Amino acid sequence: MLIREAHAEDWAELWPILWEIVAAGETYCWPTDTTEEAARAWWLEKPGGRVFVAVDDSGIVLGTAEMHPNQPAAGSHVANAGFMVASSAAGRGVGRALAEFILDRAARDGYRAMQFNAVVETNTAAVGLWLSLGFDIVATVPEAFDHPTAGLVGMHIMHRMLDRPVE
Amino acid sequence: MLIREAHAEDWAELWPILWEIVAAGETYCWPTDTTEEAARAWWLEKPGGRVFVAVDDSGIVLGTAEMHPNQPAAGSHVANAGFMVASSAAGRGVGRALAEFILDRAARDGYRAMQFNAVVETNTAAVGLWLSLGFDIVATVPEAFDHPTAGLVGMHIMHRMLDRPVE
Repeated sequence: MLIREAHAEDWAELWPILWEIVAAGETYCWPTDTTEEAARAWWLEKPGGRVFVAVDDSGIVLGTAEMHPNQPAAGSHVANAGFMVASSAAGRGVGRALAEFILDRAARDGYRAMQFNAVVETNTAAVGLWLSLGFDIVATVPEAFDHPTAGLVGMHIMHRMLDRPVE
Repeated sequence: MLIREAHAEDWAELWPILWEIVAAGETYCWPTDTTEEAARAWWLEKPGGRVFVAVDDSGIVLGTAEMHPNQPAAGSHVANAGFMVASSAAGRGVGRALAEFILDRAARDGYRAMQFNAVVETNTAAVGLWLSLGFDIVATVPEAFDHPTAGLVGMHIMHRMLDRPVE
């Protein structure tokens, strides 16, 4: 597996990966009927953002991560990030590889911390991954996410300081 | 004092109020050199947003509040809001009046809770107002705001459930 910067021509492979996750409505606050145009803008065009893809040995896209400032200006030293992995690539460590890549990349880009604002508490795979990578659950906002089967569930706010990069 | 929906023609009075607060850089994560065009879009054009103004007996704008979904779709039942009061109107209860108005308005618009993601901890007037109105500090993200004189300070995430509106 290789992780590299995303190119515009990757979008054709990214959209089905994003679509499946967004349409399920279980882990992201995006509308389940998000259009391709809106998804493309949200994933690829966040102000100050960078987008990466994990590809297999044949160059097939297995997953993607995007990183951007959590707030502008006086809050821009804290990164936020999003992750999407193809269901067909589940169990291969793609999410963890992307997560470790982004933590390192964010530190080297000068971010001092990473914060997630909306980790759905029923998304135990993601919560477990972030806890294993040193994030704390700094708050759980009660009933903040309307899950399609579980009803109103909490959303975790997760945070960790970043290691100073080795020069 | 009267609180009413903002109209497009209020902008000429709103921009100096916003500009003074934003240029100080002490309470909002907006760039201190935010342009009028960007400020107008951020304040007046948030998706699903509503904007209100507090005016005195002569119709002069004293302050403004905007309210919008904190997240789209599955998170859209939680409101977020922003408040700006003219320095010339300080001490007259404008902020509290706008806050109480917005809490009531949000409940009647169907929101179930209100959440603030970025209350700068040195902004003790705002923090005290929200605590007095029933908000909890659910987390303080350390060193998340680069204050022009205090350096890196925390940002509170504050939250409260909303009362069910009386029909």
